[in-house]
Amino acid sequence: MGCRQSFRQCCDRPKNTNVRISLPAVCFVWQIVVIILFGIFIRYDQESDAHWAEYRKFQNISSDIENDFYFRYPSFQDVHVMIFVGFGFLMTFLKRYSFSAVGFNFLIAAFGLQWALLMQGWFQSLDPMDGKIKISMESLINADFCVASCLIAYGAVLGKLSPVQLMVMTLFGITLYAVDEYIILNLIHARDAGGSMVIHTFGAYYGLSISWMLYRPNLDQSKRLNGSVYHSDVFAMIGTLFLWMFWPSFNSAITDHGDGQHRAAINTYLALASTVLTTVAISSLSQKTGKLDMVHIQNSTLAGGVAVGTAAEFMLMPYGSLIIGFCCGIISTLGYIYITPFMEKYLKIQDTCGIHNLHAMPGVIGGIVGAVTAAAASEGVYGKAGLINTFDFTGKWKDMVPSRQGGHQAAGLCVALCFGVGGGIIVGCILRMPIWGDAPDDNCFDDELYWELPEDEESIPPILEDNNHMRNRDVTESHFSMEQSQN
Amino acid sequence: MGCRQSFRQCCDRPKNTNVRISLPAVCFVWQIVVIILFGIFIRYDQESDAHWAEYRKFQNISSDIENDFYFRYPSFQDVHVMIFVGFGFLMTFLKRYSFSAVGFNFLIAAFGLQWALLMQGWFQSLDPMDGKIKISMESLINADFCVASCLIAYGAVLGKLSPVQLMVMTLFGITLYAVDEYIILNLIHARDAGGSMVIHTFGAYYGLSISWMLYRPNLDQSKRLNGSVYHSDVFAMIGTLFLWMFWPSFNSAITDHGDGQHRAAINTYLALASTVLTTVAISSLSQKTGKLDMVHIQNSTLAGGVAVGTAAEFMLMPYGSLIIGFCCGIISTLGYIYITPFMEKYLKIQDTCGIHNLHAMPGVIGGIVGAVTAAAASEGVYGKAGLINTFDFTGKWKDMVPSRQGGHQAAGLCVALCFGVGGGIIVGCILRMPIWGDAPDDNCFDDELYWELPEDEESIPPILEDNNHMRNRDVTESHFSMEQSQN
Amino acid sequence: MGCRQSFRQCCDRPKNTNVRISLPAVCFVWQIVVIILFGIFIRYDQESDAHWAEYRKFQNISSDIENDFYFRYPSFQDVHVMIFVGFGFLMTFLKRYSFSAVGFNFLIAAFGLQWALLMQGWFQSLDPMDGKIKISMESLINADFCVASCLIAYGAVLGKLSPVQLMVMTLFGITLYAVDEYIILNLIHARDAGGSMVIHTFGAYYGLSISWMLYRPNLDQSKRLNGSVYHSDVFAMIGTLFLWMFWPSFNSAITDHGDGQHRAAINTYLALASTVLTTVAISSLSQKTGKLDMVHIQNSTLAGGVAVGTAAEFMLMPYGSLIIGFCCGIISTLGYIYITPFMEKYLKIQDTCGIHNLHAMPGVIGGIVGAVTAAAASEGVYGKAGLINTFDFTGKWKDMVPSRQGGHQAAGLCVALCFGVGGGIIVGCILRMPIWGDAPDDNCFDDELYWELPEDEESIPPILEDNNHMRNRDVTESHFSMEQSQN
Repeated sequence: MGCRQSFRQCCDRPKNTNVRISLPAVCFVWQIVVIILFGIFIRYDQESDAHWAEYRKFQNISSDIENDFYFRYPSFQDVHVMIFVGFGFLMTFLKRYSFSAVGFNFLIAAFGLQWALLMQGWFQSLDPMDGKIKISMESLINADFCVASCLIAYGAVLGKLSPVQLMVMTLFGITLYAVDEYIILNLIHARDAGGSMVIHTFGAYYGLSISWMLYRPNLDQSKRLNGSVYHSDVFAMIGTLFLWMFWPSFNSAITDHGDGQHRAAINTYLALASTVLTTVAISSLSQKTGKLDMVHIQNSTLAGGVAVGTAAEFMLMPYGSLIIGFCCGIISTLGYIYITPFMEKYLKIQDTCGIHNLHAMPGVIGGIVGAVTAAAASEGVYGKAGLINTFDFTGKWKDMVPSRQGGHQAAGLCVALCFGVGGGIIVGCILRMPIWGDAPDDNCFDDELYWELPEDEESIPPILEDNNHMRNRDVTESHFSMEQSQN
Repeated sequence: MGCRQSFRQCCDRPKNTNVRISLPAVCFVWQIVVIILFGIFIRYDQESDAHWAEYRKFQNISSDIENDFYFRYPSFQDVHVMIFVGFGFLMTFLKRYSFSAVGFNFLIAAFGLQWALLMQGWFQSLDPMDGKIKISMESLINADFCVASCLIAYGAVLGKLSPVQLMVMTLFGITLYAVDEYIILNLIHARDAGGSMVIHTFGAYYGLSISWMLYRPNLDQSKRLNGSVYHSDVFAMIGTLFLWMFWPSFNSAITDHGDGQHRAAINTYLALASTVLTTVAISSLSQKTGKLDMVHIQNSTLAGGVAVGTAAEFMLMPYGSLIIGFCCGIISTLGYIYITPFMEKYLKIQDTCGIHNLHAMPGVIGGIVGAVTAAAASEGVYGKAGLINTFDFTGKWKDMVPSRQGGHQAAGLCVALCFGVGGGIIVGCILRMPIWGDAPDDNCFDDELYWELPEDEESIPPILEDNNHMRNRDVTESHFSMEQSQN
Repeated sequence: MGCRQSFRQCCDRPKNTNVRISLPAVCFVWQIVVIILFGIFIRYDQESDAHWAEYRKFQNISSDIENDFYFRYPSFQDVHVMIFVGFGFLMTFLKRYSFSAVGFNFLIAAFGLQWALLMQGWFQSLDPMDGKIKISMESLINADFCVASCLIAYGAVLGKLSPVQLMVMTLFGITLYAVDEYIILNLIHARDAGGSMVIHTFGAYYGLSISWMLYRPNLDQSKRLNGSVYHSDVFAMIGTLFLWMFWPSFNSAITDHGDGQHRAAINTYLALASTVLTTVAISSLSQKTGKLDMVHIQNSTLAGGVAVGTAAEFMLMPYGSLIIGFCCGIISTLGYIYITPFMEKYLKIQDTCGIHNLHAMPGVIGGIVGAVTAAAASEGVYGKAGLINTFDFTGKWKDMVPSRQGGHQAAGLCVALCFGVGGGIIVGCILRMPIWGDAPDDNCFDDELYWELPEDEESIPPILEDNNHMRNRDVTESHFSMEQSQN
């Protein structure tokens, strides 16, 4: 007990937010390590190697268009937009944290995807012949997916961590993800096309656990900055919409060629559409005068895409997708109204972006939906070949049956939960150390700590109708002098 | 006469903008109805069903890449971006209506696409074997197209309708669209790849007629909010550019595989490019000092894409596309300068976004261009197979000739006009009822009525060069006290 | 000497920024000329012509999906976004020049791509049979590429040129580009998939030379406007991110079908990722307190994409791409810190956006990397067919060997440099003439000169919690009266 106390005391020393040594050091060293590991391990696979022409002839592939590139590339670019613009801008809603939202999102995603290529490669695509990892477009999509889980976690701790902490969080997050994914997809043989379990459940609980470990009792000293302004909310809508629009690509990016991708896109499209309506309904109901809350529109409208992730490629049926979206819009919006304040007050979990409502709950729902629909799959609905393709009942899993597959899906969900919570607690402990340059409680949610900020907007000289530059300058001066008299 | 007067009086009661009952009720009930109808009617088609593998073998299709998904998906995602980001952000130009612009656009599009899948399905793809509608990527694109017409109409009434009214307008708009489209494309057999007639002409006249029915004589009481600020104009440019850039995808999304899609994209690309130049020219000419007007740049630059819609897949020739764009840039910009004020003053049509200039006139031009170019089509230019493919002279239309096709195109344009004007007048009547929660005349164009707004931008503490937080807070206080002394 | 002086004097007359005659005249006349030239020269190629069905049968092409449209279209749309949103928004960072940044970018790109189709067509795809230029999706991508070089040049002169000057700069820039490209790609047979040499090196030195010729000694009189504000920096991040995300499409858009496109996308993705980390590291190191500078994040993070351009389709190996990105992030960021101020002070080159750091240096690096990797190519790494495909050792180049190809690459780089510098000096001379309506030194970086600006943001009535409109209006009035008392 005393030990724990002294650890706490040590962690609660006055904060020094100078990251001039630590941030460049982390960036340089890790990047160099990654380059060395890439040099040792990573090569092109046959479809991106210059030997493709020979391989194609050898495999009797009739046309270049059957290179996997053309199956995956449009989806890949959409996923890429979701990662960088979607997640980045979704978090710009804070009035003075837009630089950090979009900038640190950029930084950790750029690092994370390199690390993910290595980690996922080691676990899943190490070529036993030559000990190399062979990468292709699908690897890039998987790396982006992996990064998504860490960006989700960033949402919980937005405004409270230094960039160095975020890098550390990402390093461990990617590593845990790769193990977690290997267990769920390869060992347990659960299916998870859109990553409800692997990405969203894991990422959200990882972030929430970290936030719990880093609980700041005096965070309300930064209350003045923990909110939006008009324009920052419009910026956040850019993020929301790009996530919403491209989610069908996210859920279909690595599903089976042909009907698998086709169906996943349709299911996701429908689930998201119905989520919007129930989100609006609950948001309006929750206010005395029926006004809508931008926070709900920005976030809860996306819950359907999360929840339909695991089952996106299954024969959910169009109405099934709508029902999932319908429920998730309600649950997620209610989460923002009731659960987030509850968690902050009683569970000591401060969740800046409300990822519990957007990713954690819908992710768990998605896992359950996946388990149920997998268990209920039948040859009548899927056809014999369809069942095998959709659930990948091949190789050592060729004797699997849908009902058992349902159990495996449920097991996968549990693993994701455990990894998220467990990993988050451990990483949270590490991040409590007072060496990372995080913000003091009274100065969170502030770009000023880590960014050179431009001068204030108010000092733009007012726009005059005529071209009288002389007067223009006068006004500027008078404006400045007024400012001085204020101070 | 007395009856009409009392109806007017009834409609002009003091406004109550509380939508706390009506908005959630509409969202919930309609969504549930849609889910039930989807359950009864909507299924996957063969290309998105898990039986695809068997179907493929049966049809002797050599590769998964020939699944229609790969022909359509990139275009679909671009169209999706146009609907949600394009239309949504184009309307954010008003200084205090950005939340509603992008938020209600989101809401009605999300509802509209579900309803469109049903309505278009009933009219066009009901399987006579089992009474089901089979959906695929192409259905999703068509649903997005259908929604576009209602978003165009939203442009005319922007700032003046409550979200409930918008939902009603969308419900009827989609329904009318589906009938209209069925008549034009199936009964009349007009071609309309990019929807100059079906989408733009119909949508614009639908919106303008509604706006005419809902004429507000005292709208200038809201003049203070009916304009842009610097940043809102930049946000609107996001919408403009995404519409402009992805318009080639819009016009080519559902054209014939192969050369049809290829040619439609090229034609649209060229038409839009030349529109930009003439828009800039007229905009500069119209001002005493040659300055450009952002309203023109935001809107008129898109007119070429509208006008080339119907004929996009025809052999317009590259210079033909340029000429269409050239003319539309001029006409559309002149429309903003002369026709919109004229319509408001003399015709009692208040057109917030100027859709008459961006969609109505270019749409009609597009219909005429389609009729003329169809009538002028010849086997020399198209080739025998090309003519049949492009104009779909198959089945019961196998004896059609280009000159008659031109007449059918013209008939299609008339139908679109009638449906737009007629439908708009009827729906406008319905929307005049005083139960919908629309804004009073002196408070239009204001997000405050339907949104919880964040605190004002000015109360952000000014950014200081040093880290002196104490002083930081002092300044905030002095700022507040200054505000008080002002009031 | 006297002659030169009088030319200078003539050029330094008081500025008249009225472009009411010149801008519309340039737009109209040039557009009409382009239409006429299109009418004479430009036709669809076989893949976009309605005769495709016959051509397909004749060529024994098995499916419509092998139409080049499906290989290129997703990349094309991404490139299109980079040109209009990427470049446009990247330049919105100035506090009062966002309209011009995004608007003039729009204008010159729309003109430039038409002119590029003609110029590139004459040089590269004039059909000797009928004297026509046959265009397809690849032509559109090439036109967008060509435009990119002029938009890069715009970055150097941002805020200092009138729209008429920009049009002139674009006209000559496109022309020079087409000649330059013809020499480098066709005569010298250098490979340049992503245009490190042809696009970036040429464009950047073209712009820098123009800026040098148009040196403004008193530019610091406009210092008040030569900087960003908080929101304008966030807008600029939209540009940065869309450039960053879609750069893999840029570099792979016109590479070989199959493995060429696949590999180019992977290499670019990796190079860009490692650039981000080193940019952040150097940016943080460069400030006393380790704070990041938004200028670096907005620009230097893109340098890796530039530098990997030429070699993107070569067998760079994943670690090779990372190393290129690593170096370029460092060099580019150091460029912003040391070289840009140096160039302004000692070389009289005012580079508003720092294109020397983002395009010129990385472009030259890219050219060198291309030469080295081409010289080092071997049949062992590429395979026999791969070597021929990648370096296009066919036709009259069928006896080429990699080592000589390296020399040709180096020669290509020199040509690009010469064309950039030489062309820029000549065009700069032309633009010095006092007839173009550019801004006076004390009023650069100001939208007010060429745009009708909306009223100032401050005059939005403050948002009040209640609906008391009366009070709302009072505040507005008091605000206005305060403004008056200031003046």
